[in-house]
Amino acid sequence: MFKKSLQNLRAYNPGPSVEEIKKMYGLSRVVKLDSNENVYGASPNVRKAITMDALLPELYPDCQDLDLRLELSRRLGPAPQQFLFGTGLDEIIVLISRAFLEPGNSIVMAWPTFYEYYCHAQIEGADTRKVPCRPDGKHDWKAMLQAIDETTKVVWICNPNNPTGTYLTKKELDQFIDSVPSNVLVVLDEAYIDFVTAEDFPNGLDYLNDYENVLVLRTFSKAYGLASFRIGYAIGSLTVINELDKVRPPFNNPRLSQVAALTALKDDSFKENCLRKNQEVMAMTTAFLKKKGIRYDESQANFIFIRVNEPKQIALICKQNGFLINPFEDGVRVTLGKMEDMKHFLKRLESAIDGTSALVSSKKE
Amino acid sequence: MFKKSLQNLRAYNPGPSVEEIKKMYGLSRVVKLDSNENVYGASPNVRKAITMDALLPELYPDCQDLDLRLELSRRLGPAPQQFLFGTGLDEIIVLISRAFLEPGNSIVMAWPTFYEYYCHAQIEGADTRKVPCRPDGKHDWKAMLQAIDETTKVVWICNPNNPTGTYLTKKELDQFIDSVPSNVLVVLDEAYIDFVTAEDFPNGLDYLNDYENVLVLRTFSKAYGLASFRIGYAIGSLTVINELDKVRPPFNNPRLSQVAALTALKDDSFKENCLRKNQEVMAMTTAFLKKKGIRYDESQANFIFIRVNEPKQIALICKQNGFLINPFEDGVRVTLGKMEDMKHFLKRLESAIDGTSALVSSKKE
Repeated sequence: MFKKSLQNLRAYNPGPSVEEIKKMYGLSRVVKLDSNENVYGASPNVRKAITMDALLPELYPDCQDLDLRLELSRRLGPAPQQFLFGTGLDEIIVLISRAFLEPGNSIVMAWPTFYEYYCHAQIEGADTRKVPCRPDGKHDWKAMLQAIDETTKVVWICNPNNPTGTYLTKKELDQFIDSVPSNVLVVLDEAYIDFVTAEDFPNGLDYLNDYENVLVLRTFSKAYGLASFRIGYAIGSLTVINELDKVRPPFNNPRLSQVAALTALKDDSFKENCLRKNQEVMAMTTAFLKKKGIRYDESQANFIFIRVNEPKQIALICKQNGFLINPFEDGVRVTLGKMEDMKHFLKRLESAIDGTSALVSSKKE
Repeated sequence: MFKKSLQNLRAYNPGPSVEEIKKMYGLSRVVKLDSNENVYGASPNVRKAITMDALLPELYPDCQDLDLRLELSRRLGPAPQQFLFGTGLDEIIVLISRAFLEPGNSIVMAWPTFYEYYCHAQIEGADTRKVPCRPDGKHDWKAMLQAIDETTKVVWICNPNNPTGTYLTKKELDQFIDSVPSNVLVVLDEAYIDFVTAEDFPNGLDYLNDYENVLVLRTFSKAYGLASFRIGYAIGSLTVINELDKVRPPFNNPRLSQVAALTALKDDSFKENCLRKNQEVMAMTTAFLKKKGIRYDESQANFIFIRVNEPKQIALICKQNGFLINPFEDGVRVTLGKMEDMKHFLKRLESAIDGTSALVSSKKE
């Protein structure tokens, strides 16, 4: 009845809710460090904007996100027609996969990186080439280039990478993009670009004039603190945007989501304030980890990838103690919480690591 | 670069906005009778609900729409696990097309009916078999049965049909569903079921116990007046729902949309009030059309399909006079507006028809 490609896939499992975890472990408070949300909330202007009389619940929303589109164009440079909006970047990834991929095609991506690239290529029946990240967490871009062949339609670069927070420098990305055949789409997923401080970090928009096959992804779910509203967008050449628009379902962004995004976009001081706090917490966190000799990847985002043995066990211990983090194969991804939360978390993490190591050693004996 | 199946497709074109039309034709007011929105708005409780403190802009919304799911299950009967939520039925149609269709497959659908069934099957590269509706606007279900063969994966029944408003009776649908092979998905799109008054109209949910291959679609965009929030849903067997859930992007419904839907769902009196007014306007409208000898299809929805020559010309004249309606090949689809708006519209329509006929006759002479 269904496409064969679905056989080995599973639906996304969000896991138990915060309320369920509280009940399960008898906790009065749970700190969410697992989804890279903005721990400082969103611009207070958003709350004011969505209570205004312009609600119009019964009318379909603007199909083109016009006000938001114009403001983004004004701020970022590309023409209004170069933008495409989706229900979070999750939907944009669906649109790309649907427009470009079919059985016999392939994609090239890093591993670990954002899982949805893999998932939606699988649904389309395309081959998914996962190129392992280097030991420092960075995309192995030279190996990724080698993995591209005539079947390759899309190559995904998550910059900074989720979950490692590492990045390709401007020099590296220049070389990479220049080496990719012009009929392969290079997607630069810049969901976390707002948190970046490194001076040699490349701005994906700079490639748009010279490369019709480059597509840049950005979102309001992270630095702008609007994960609840689900607005992400792509910026690219008219050729690419126009084709993606063919597979976009009409009216895919609720009116209030558009209003919230436009409002948040205009509040520069809120965002700057969050970025400053994020940097302070990042400095404290890396200092702690260095001092304790715990390995981590150098991150440009609002999370950090900490390399531990037994990541699942560590994540479970943290959860039982009221801290939600995300386990991967070689470590745990931790959203940078507020300063006090993060200090408590790091102590908890340290004892979890010590406890797990003791357990592992005793098992070995 | 792109899938071949996109070559002959176009992106959805929403046309000029109400404000643009006002400017273009020098109108002070434009009455929207083109999108089957609820002309009476939405439950006033929705406005109260979305201003509450539970906004949580920075957190991802509930991935499972749990509160809404439980309330719908309680009201409609099927188990909570039998529901699947989307960004309007538009996204649900995407999910169905993506999970079931690939090149070599076919779908069977009526014509005219909701265009998105066609569009998303085309994107998947499937064959689209359009079976013309009968002269009275009804699905020709016997011809649709004959169009099903071993390549057919999905058959779409829009009941009541958009744009004709006509329906298959319980007896007809019983026979139809019983005749469809059990490995073909029968989608019953009941977006307009809330407006139905006919006693022999079938409730799609009644088929779910006996037919694993039946899927029912419903929405909050019409009778509940929440088009702005974009929540539609599917109800079906666990087998079908579980596979569809594999292609659903996570967190696809913003938190406020979930809150709005749950609030609207609980306000029975608002909906009943709208349905009563809709019936009054329908009675007035059909009496007018009958008296004037203008042909129309018997409708069970909040719109009516009026059979006119030169539908595009008629729709243009109406637009120039401040009434937006939707032209099709054999007629125009008109949302039932408020009583006074509708009376004005019908007079305008009558003179547009007279004028167009005179023009056609004079051309022939």
